[in-house]
Amino acid sequence: MSGDSDGGVRSVTRAIDMLDLFDERNLRYTTRELVERTGLAKTTVLRLVGTLEQRGLLWTGPDGRIAAGPGLLRWARLAHAVWQVPEAARAVMRELVADTAETVNLYVRADAVRVCVAQEEGPQRLRHVVNTGDEMVLWGGAASKVLLIGADDATLLRVAAASPYGPAHVDRLRAQVGDAAERGYAVSHGEREHGASGVAAPVFGRTGRTPVAALAVGGPTARFTDAAVRGFTESVMGAARRISEIGLDPAGGAPAPGEDR
Amino acid sequence: MSGDSDGGVRSVTRAIDMLDLFDERNLRYTTRELVERTGLAKTTVLRLVGTLEQRGLLWTGPDGRIAAGPGLLRWARLAHAVWQVPEAARAVMRELVADTAETVNLYVRADAVRVCVAQEEGPQRLRHVVNTGDEMVLWGGAASKVLLIGADDATLLRVAAASPYGPAHVDRLRAQVGDAAERGYAVSHGEREHGASGVAAPVFGRTGRTPVAALAVGGPTARFTDAAVRGFTESVMGAARRISEIGLDPAGGAPAPGEDR
Repeated sequence: MSGDSDGGVRSVTRAIDMLDLFDERNLRYTTRELVERTGLAKTTVLRLVGTLEQRGLLWTGPDGRIAAGPGLLRWARLAHAVWQVPEAARAVMRELVADTAETVNLYVRADAVRVCVAQEEGPQRLRHVVNTGDEMVLWGGAASKVLLIGADDATLLRVAAASPYGPAHVDRLRAQVGDAAERGYAVSHGEREHGASGVAAPVFGRTGRTPVAALAVGGPTARFTDAAVRGFTESVMGAARRISEIGLDPAGGAPAPGEDR
Repeated sequence: MSGDSDGGVRSVTRAIDMLDLFDERNLRYTTRELVERTGLAKTTVLRLVGTLEQRGLLWTGPDGRIAAGPGLLRWARLAHAVWQVPEAARAVMRELVADTAETVNLYVRADAVRVCVAQEEGPQRLRHVVNTGDEMVLWGGAASKVLLIGADDATLLRVAAASPYGPAHVDRLRAQVGDAAERGYAVSHGEREHGASGVAAPVFGRTGRTPVAALAVGGPTARFTDAAVRGFTESVMGAARRISEIGLDPAGGAPAPGEDR
């Protein structure tokens, strides 16, 4: 297949996959390790690394190992300019931590995945660890149901297809999303990860009925008893309403978080 | 030409070029604006945006405008983990600002460009504005001469070819770089930008004679008189030596800045 027949999508996807191999625990790789991890031919890896290195997105050290490049700093600045959550909204998240003693995350939907854009950590040792910028699945978890409110059927189908249950999951997903829309919150137990539970509520923009984000508390299922969940639901819904009033309209008609401030 | 014949380099380059259109002053574009700015066919733009959006690197708002996506937050975290300059080195940079009353930048070389990885702003109104993560040319400026110490001839040729003087510039560049290597510093006046001057010195890693970074003071030429430059040179060389001792070995054999701390 020529790279052109798909508009070069495959090459771009491969480049992003390669950058995604790097994280705080894996700061550098040898070429050989990159070949192993990507499953690509060595010549392809070398060409991709060369291209990304020319743009400063990767960096080859004197020992030949390849690391994240300084060019990512520019995108870091950009990401923070667009996605910085206003301090007032952060304060509400911290209050929610104080209320629930669980970790609080704010997620947005990016096509068929969700991304954590802000986190306030809970006080307990056993807690739900997600890092800012982490991509997570949309087929499971309370926040996913909330983020899919208003999504079209094609999106729901793609999300279901990416789930371990396959495309048939779409009916269950549609019902769960409908439920979240009606009640104004969603609860999940062990859907994405065994033993992990969450409660989420939608954050709305200044316009529209489609959520711009989901505010969620997450933690071990053992602490998410029915009684606890009732309290969490109340707290999360209240906090989400307050954040909606503060405004959090990423890249919408209204200013994005962090813009014009 | 098939996208495969160049290993998909062209598509990856286009995707990076598109992301590079976004900055703090240009947070969002319409599809039409992206077509105009990139000079690509609309179908190509739509495919690239679709691919980048699926990975959270771009984001389409409810008004249809396209912005930097939340997925960049992950790379932001990564870039900071690798490229965070140690506080002790930052302190030296601030002392250098106090000494010279000019803005101090720390640059690293990424193939044939340089990238600003840290900045301490000078106190005066008229100052040299560079942002962390900004890519800058290597064919001009004092920091470039320093960063090219030890570079092979192929690199010098590519840098010269990218200059307004064309490949013939390589002889002058080689002489300037040799000069910087011998003296341990470089001075430039209006090379890259009319009216802008700089003094730079190399920061070395724990091993090797190739600089890992260039420490530079930059400001208006009017303030970079011969007498001032003598003082700046002394200060910059001293500060660069101290930062070399502190250690700043991006992606080298030694820990990178920010790692293992």
